[in-house]
Amino acid sequence: MRRSVIGGAKRSSLFLLNQAHRSLHHHLGSSPSSSATALLLLLRRLSSSSASSPPPPNMSNPVTVQSINPKVLQCEYAVRGEIVNLAQRLQEELKANPGSLPFDEILYCNIGNPQSLGQLPITFFREVLALCDHPTILDKAETQGLFSADSIERAWQILDQIPGRATGAYSHSQGIKGLRDTIAAGIEARDGFPANPNDIFLTDGASPAVHMMMQLLISSEKDGILCPIPQYPLYSASIALHGGSLIPYYLDEETGWGLEVSELKKQLEEARSKGISVRALVVINPGNPTGQVLAEENQRDIVEFCKKEGLVLLADEVYQENIYVPEKKFHSFKKVARSMGYGDNDLCLVSFQSVSKGYHGECGKRGGYMEITGFSPEVREQIYKVASVNLCSNISGQILASLVMSPPKVGDESYESYSAEKDGILESLARRAKTLEDAFNSLEGITCNKAEGAMYLFPRIRLPEKAIKAAEAAKTAPDLFYCRHLLNATGVVVVPGSGFGQVPGTWHFRCTILPQEDKIPAIVSRLTDFHKSFMDEYRD
Amino acid sequence: MRRSVIGGAKRSSLFLLNQAHRSLHHHLGSSPSSSATALLLLLRRLSSSSASSPPPPNMSNPVTVQSINPKVLQCEYAVRGEIVNLAQRLQEELKANPGSLPFDEILYCNIGNPQSLGQLPITFFREVLALCDHPTILDKAETQGLFSADSIERAWQILDQIPGRATGAYSHSQGIKGLRDTIAAGIEARDGFPANPNDIFLTDGASPAVHMMMQLLISSEKDGILCPIPQYPLYSASIALHGGSLIPYYLDEETGWGLEVSELKKQLEEARSKGISVRALVVINPGNPTGQVLAEENQRDIVEFCKKEGLVLLADEVYQENIYVPEKKFHSFKKVARSMGYGDNDLCLVSFQSVSKGYHGECGKRGGYMEITGFSPEVREQIYKVASVNLCSNISGQILASLVMSPPKVGDESYESYSAEKDGILESLARRAKTLEDAFNSLEGITCNKAEGAMYLFPRIRLPEKAIKAAEAAKTAPDLFYCRHLLNATGVVVVPGSGFGQVPGTWHFRCTILPQEDKIPAIVSRLTDFHKSFMDEYRD
Repeated sequence: MRRSVIGGAKRSSLFLLNQAHRSLHHHLGSSPSSSATALLLLLRRLSSSSASSPPPPNMSNPVTVQSINPKVLQCEYAVRGEIVNLAQRLQEELKANPGSLPFDEILYCNIGNPQSLGQLPITFFREVLALCDHPTILDKAETQGLFSADSIERAWQILDQIPGRATGAYSHSQGIKGLRDTIAAGIEARDGFPANPNDIFLTDGASPAVHMMMQLLISSEKDGILCPIPQYPLYSASIALHGGSLIPYYLDEETGWGLEVSELKKQLEEARSKGISVRALVVINPGNPTGQVLAEENQRDIVEFCKKEGLVLLADEVYQENIYVPEKKFHSFKKVARSMGYGDNDLCLVSFQSVSKGYHGECGKRGGYMEITGFSPEVREQIYKVASVNLCSNISGQILASLVMSPPKVGDESYESYSAEKDGILESLARRAKTLEDAFNSLEGITCNKAEGAMYLFPRIRLPEKAIKAAEAAKTAPDLFYCRHLLNATGVVVVPGSGFGQVPGTWHFRCTILPQEDKIPAIVSRLTDFHKSFMDEYRD
Repeated sequence: MRRSVIGGAKRSSLFLLNQAHRSLHHHLGSSPSSSATALLLLLRRLSSSSASSPPPPNMSNPVTVQSINPKVLQCEYAVRGEIVNLAQRLQEELKANPGSLPFDEILYCNIGNPQSLGQLPITFFREVLALCDHPTILDKAETQGLFSADSIERAWQILDQIPGRATGAYSHSQGIKGLRDTIAAGIEARDGFPANPNDIFLTDGASPAVHMMMQLLISSEKDGILCPIPQYPLYSASIALHGGSLIPYYLDEETGWGLEVSELKKQLEEARSKGISVRALVVINPGNPTGQVLAEENQRDIVEFCKKEGLVLLADEVYQENIYVPEKKFHSFKKVARSMGYGDNDLCLVSFQSVSKGYHGECGKRGGYMEITGFSPEVREQIYKVASVNLCSNISGQILASLVMSPPKVGDESYESYSAEKDGILESLARRAKTLEDAFNSLEGITCNKAEGAMYLFPRIRLPEKAIKAAEAAKTAPDLFYCRHLLNATGVVVVPGSGFGQVPGTWHFRCTILPQEDKIPAIVSRLTDFHKSFMDEYRD
């Protein structure tokens, strides 16, 4: 099963059988009963699809699971999947019957959602957002006492960039031009190469931008997208929703989740031999869930590979600010490509950025952008058209994206407090990453690569045969079995590796580094105690 | 061509031919050259799709218009289409060379975007949003001087509904539970029937909610959605993007854009006879672009029809606050269904609501919700899963949606100013609608139904044969020809009827009632002068 190409059948019945196969593949490590259900549903759909007239409407309920879009059934998103549903039930239980569980709070380490765990927003950013939401106070005397001078100045600047100063109006479908100018200047300052505001599409977070590109590139299951395994499950979900084929390439855990071009080539060729037209390569840098930061030389090889093979490079760069080791730096793929001498006509490149990550972690604001370069005017027009159907992304998110790419500078009134907040968060994240990494590595049968960046650790657990058997008996994947026991014993929510993909027969989980620092010692001790007793129970 | 079912072929090549046919149908009244281009692209795709191996990547550019998803090519969104592109070019021209055009500003009457034309936001709403964006000022003394007491109180209430008071965190994928409680209470107060917060999905405006339902219901071109003609082009765009078939039903212009159940039945039967499984009925009430408000009895017939025929009722109710005539009232379809005795198990009903419309017109905030009732737990789980892939909608939009459904009440400090702002906007909109309607009706060859609600007029123009010939010579649809001349002469941007659909051989345009009231007389006189000279030029 390892390294097999997913998808690729030619006719509709074959396609559905293939979908059933993919579903089973996808459920590997998940409960056999849910695989069976998915298979059953797909086979039902398959048998009904052979009838030439539409099925009569079900008068008792016209919408059944069997009658909905099978791509929706197909799609999975583990980060908010089964284990989180259990956590929500436990949280309700805790609220209804305090003291009824062996812990007094649920710690959500399943998702990169820093402010939900107590991280505070950057003051300057929130000042500007509040002033843009209610500009009538800008002229009032009291406002001087409540807001920093540079936040007031910045709010005026931003309002002047918005036609009619109307923060409540739909904007241009790519986002407000003045804000795109600011973002382009920020990209230019970061990379040392020019950026064009007309290449920027502001979006409600990075997810809709990823969907937009998948929608553009995928016509059928014959269109393939190369994705890392392990991957952030937005990619598998989006490919499934758009009916394409996910072509997996494996990151090498032994070399710190290394991305080998030889592996890319091998998977590309295998996919092509099966008749798949491979359209794009997804690279997540820094890695999610794997936390590695790519070396510049490695990035050059990837650019060369995409150029040579005619692939769109979809660069998920949302963790560009989250780097925790001095020996690694973030290099955008655009900078790498430009520094190799490749211009706008040489490579189709999309860079995704988000306000949800970085040191700011403004997940609830749903801001982000994609910078698209190398596409023809005709194709860009199609991308613009799709963006225009949804009118525009939310203006607060747009403003925040401009702030993130253009924070206070030396000499600004807010600069010192801004820097202190930023550095405090990033230094603390680095310490938390190291502490958790060391803790995992100290546990029997667990090995954990370094989180060089991003917000996650992805430790590998070597589970005893007895635990694997117990999981089988409970009709549960072994990693889910472990994560469920962990949650029930400690209140700590982590996501089983099967939600991200892993080499079959290996087991992992993803754990964020986001709980506040004062809680880390207690988490480490709860994890350690749990793991010891789990191993004592199941050791072979 | 009139009243023919769009779509419905069975095999992929037939489907593509059918798409080409649909494209031509859709372009009826649009330029023949663009129809020809669309057809050409589709035929190219058709010929290449017969090859069994994927085409070799184009090394010079791997993404060509021919290689992208044909559903994307297929989709059109006239509200931001060709005429708006021309307007943007003219605006740049005005900026670069003031005085070079026969007008000094572009008046965007193409889109329901009130604040872009000078409408001010509701103060209370913006106060609460600003305070929730920057809660650290809530305790400061200066804040009492800047914000109303009830906005401060409301901000505290809302923050207490958000876990950890974290307005920067991803929320539950349906939206913050406390805000959904508030919205459910608002629906209950509006309808007099209970609403369940778990039926509510908060979204970034109504558009993503519509996409979500189309994604659920449409598996292929054999799934049909009954849509009014004229319709708001989000529906045709979303159906095209999801690969379904739009089944048109015509509103009757003679009876004030009446919605006849006999017409629904006829179109439903015709679609079914062609093998289409009709899944849902879209009703826009108040109407967009047509402005009619349905009578309650008519709504009962529609509910009965959906119940009997096993159709999901997709109720676009985003203009529920925009009613301008005393003889009409808004009744939600849920209220109508419940008052007929139909409960949750009798009818699948989705109601779309948005913060962009109403008297508040907060388009840039991208807030909205859908209330879904009548779906089985298994199907709801699938809807939730799709929502979870995008994590959540933006929190400011969520907060605003709760405010819109729960504005200040009698006795609250802000109540009087809130009411004055609200009534001022709605009364002015009613006057503007009447003035523009009368103006259109006074013009030679133009008839215009009353805008009972929503934000638009959709006048019919009886163009002289000579104008139709001139349009043909210019390779332009007659309505586009008229709208383009209007824009070039007056700076007023309206959307040709062909973007919404119209009975073939009739011509219309959509004009919003949103320019500020002091500008209306000048607009009327510009429209009148233009129309007279146009008619003088082309009168047969």
